[in-house]
Amino acid sequence: MSNVKLAVIYYSMGGTNYQLSKWAEEGAKEVGAEVKVLKVPELAPQHVIDENEGWKAHVEATKDVPEVTLDDLEWADAIIFSVPTRYGNMPAQMKQFLDTTGGLWFNGKLINKVVSAMSSAQNPHGGQESTILGLYTTMHHWGALIASPGYTDPVQFTSGGNPYGVSVTVGQDGKMLEDVHAAVKHQAKRTVTIAEWVKKANQ
Amino acid sequence: MSNVKLAVIYYSMGGTNYQLSKWAEEGAKEVGAEVKVLKVPELAPQHVIDENEGWKAHVEATKDVPEVTLDDLEWADAIIFSVPTRYGNMPAQMKQFLDTTGGLWFNGKLINKVVSAMSSAQNPHGGQESTILGLYTTMHHWGALIASPGYTDPVQFTSGGNPYGVSVTVGQDGKMLEDVHAAVKHQAKRTVTIAEWVKKANQ
Amino acid sequence: MSNVKLAVIYYSMGGTNYQLSKWAEEGAKEVGAEVKVLKVPELAPQHVIDENEGWKAHVEATKDVPEVTLDDLEWADAIIFSVPTRYGNMPAQMKQFLDTTGGLWFNGKLINKVVSAMSSAQNPHGGQESTILGLYTTMHHWGALIASPGYTDPVQFTSGGNPYGVSVTVGQDGKMLEDVHAAVKHQAKRTVTIAEWVKKANQ
Amino acid sequence: MSNVKLAVIYYSMGGTNYQLSKWAEEGAKEVGAEVKVLKVPELAPQHVIDENEGWKAHVEATKDVPEVTLDDLEWADAIIFSVPTRYGNMPAQMKQFLDTTGGLWFNGKLINKVVSAMSSAQNPHGGQESTILGLYTTMHHWGALIASPGYTDPVQFTSGGNPYGVSVTVGQDGKMLEDVHAAVKHQAKRTVTIAEWVKKANQ
Repeated sequence: MSNVKLAVIYYSMGGTNYQLSKWAEEGAKEVGAEVKVLKVPELAPQHVIDENEGWKAHVEATKDVPEVTLDDLEWADAIIFSVPTRYGNMPAQMKQFLDTTGGLWFNGKLINKVVSAMSSAQNPHGGQESTILGLYTTMHHWGALIASPGYTDPVQFTSGGNPYGVSVTVGQDGKMLEDVHAAVKHQAKRTVTIAEWVKKANQ
Repeated sequence: MSNVKLAVIYYSMGGTNYQLSKWAEEGAKEVGAEVKVLKVPELAPQHVIDENEGWKAHVEATKDVPEVTLDDLEWADAIIFSVPTRYGNMPAQMKQFLDTTGGLWFNGKLINKVVSAMSSAQNPHGGQESTILGLYTTMHHWGALIASPGYTDPVQFTSGGNPYGVSVTVGQDGKMLEDVHAAVKHQAKRTVTIAEWVKKANQ
Repeated sequence: MSNVKLAVIYYSMGGTNYQLSKWAEEGAKEVGAEVKVLKVPELAPQHVIDENEGWKAHVEATKDVPEVTLDDLEWADAIIFSVPTRYGNMPAQMKQFLDTTGGLWFNGKLINKVVSAMSSAQNPHGGQESTILGLYTTMHHWGALIASPGYTDPVQFTSGGNPYGVSVTVGQDGKMLEDVHAAVKHQAKRTVTIAEWVKKANQ
Repeated sequence: MSNVKLAVIYYSMGGTNYQLSKWAEEGAKEVGAEVKVLKVPELAPQHVIDENEGWKAHVEATKDVPEVTLDDLEWADAIIFSVPTRYGNMPAQMKQFLDTTGGLWFNGKLINKVVSAMSSAQNPHGGQESTILGLYTTMHHWGALIASPGYTDPVQFTSGGNPYGVSVTVGQDGKMLEDVHAAVKHQAKRTVTIAEWVKKANQ
């Protein structure tokens, strides 16, 4: 079994990307990975959060989820990112965290991390693809190995078929419109498995 | 009313993008545009087409649709492209046509064309977004004005909500899974209207 | 002459994108635009800025440049964005500002803004293209009209030839390696001119 | 040493991408790979080629380079693509070849290929980045592992620093403006090395 270390790094206001992250954790553990589910720091002021009941409730419900640190990136062999779209690109909260990794980057500490990403949006074609592809642009700068799911498993065809990474559409009621549980688990297992290949070859 | 000249340029194997193009024509005519629906030349050998019944039938059904020429590009004030995805990017047939426009480009004949694009795929997130965005990359090189639909009309929210351009998912039976008729008409009207602004200002 | 209102919105640590913005202002004024040069709010803590002499000096030198507000977006007919790359995508500071525009977006107040963008990077191919294209992805969501420079003027061929928007490479000493002054002015004039066409048609 | 099989697949009119491909072969062989340098089939009619002296000369000079086949894709553990930009996207010739891989794709024969790409353009920022990123979009559909160079070696900083893949600018005289020989070799070695990790783990 794998001793791959996986960091699942997410941003969530309403819980969707937290749920995706937990499913990724579930899949990764099934193939033996050690997993940390980690949130990126919030940029919004507390009073803005407090004005939005769903957001406030989610922040409180996940107050014990650790915030990601630069040490977590160094620790990880593999990383899965999960973000809602904001106008076809990742939220500023995730970008701000990525922008703080210059020191690790300069010292080559992000090279060969095996990565993939997931996304959500409120419209069926509301940036699910472009958000993930935008995140991968940054991963190229890191020298990461990008292990998107493609169509590597039949589950892709029943879960929306986003080859860049699993994505969901979130209805007005905050519920996911597609059943992507199995697809997320597949993506997580694939990311971990490839990281295992990389790790073994470098031991 | 408008005297805008609109070229709707498409590639289609099974009829989806031809249908989208006809709906675009319908919308554009309602705002007074002069419209040409034009197909790009096929690259596949006839014997390959003949082996695929649906493809063969579509080719025969549209044999009277004119093939696009470079003169059509010069003629047009506005252009709408409609293509199925091929691995998240436009089909080679469309790319080959675009690659032949170097002479027009060199002479500045493609500047300020008002453009937008539409797409289709077999999976709900099978490249609908990335195919359109890839086509727009080429439009930047032309010096075109990109007039994607965004969320400029409520119809966007009932038709998949692809802000880059209308897109559809095509089932195994070749039928469109979303009702995008009204959204295509909106996109066409918007493209024509903006071209009209550009045209009036330059008369 | 034009009565177009142009907002030049930038983020800058070392002054490059501030300089590009001032050149854009210069070009835009030559075609009669009313121009505001505006910075996005900083996300970095003051103590981090203070540890970096160049950054600290730039922050002090531009302390009188107004911070952009949502009202500025409503006021503007045209917007030019100018940002350094951060891993092939805009900095979190700019993204955070864009992410706060949901109210304007919901009320359709960002539709038909005429936009273009500029970028800088420390390597000659360090994200100059992808950063601008990433920003345009968001503009599609707004329903903006994207008026990139393409090759609409010969100056493009002497200034790096980035058709998506003017870009520069910044050396270790903080100096721009290409002379893009004229190219920036061209881009600004083009953005304003197209906004003028849109404005006139809608009066 | 490696027994990795590398296919370097290119399109070239003037020789630049053929030269990049030969350098990739050189680097890959130094780490023990078995290498095939392969051209994609031409789409232009012979009479068009004959009217352009440089193009005609290059076609004749490389007439013994084998054309890539679908079998070559199945054979390869790793693939490096090398293409000039055409309006910020790969040439139709390469796209046409990629579009013929549906059978392999359907049977899962393209999964876990380790890939990277290179590009050229006539302007310093003429699509070098976007062309490579566009090609990677297709690779996600394949389920390939994308191993871009990032900044994994100091040579990147002296060769233009394109983290997505090595790129060059080609002057009016057809000569490359940057010295990317060492950077191409590094990219090839990196692609092969990662393919070796994947191969070993799957034996």
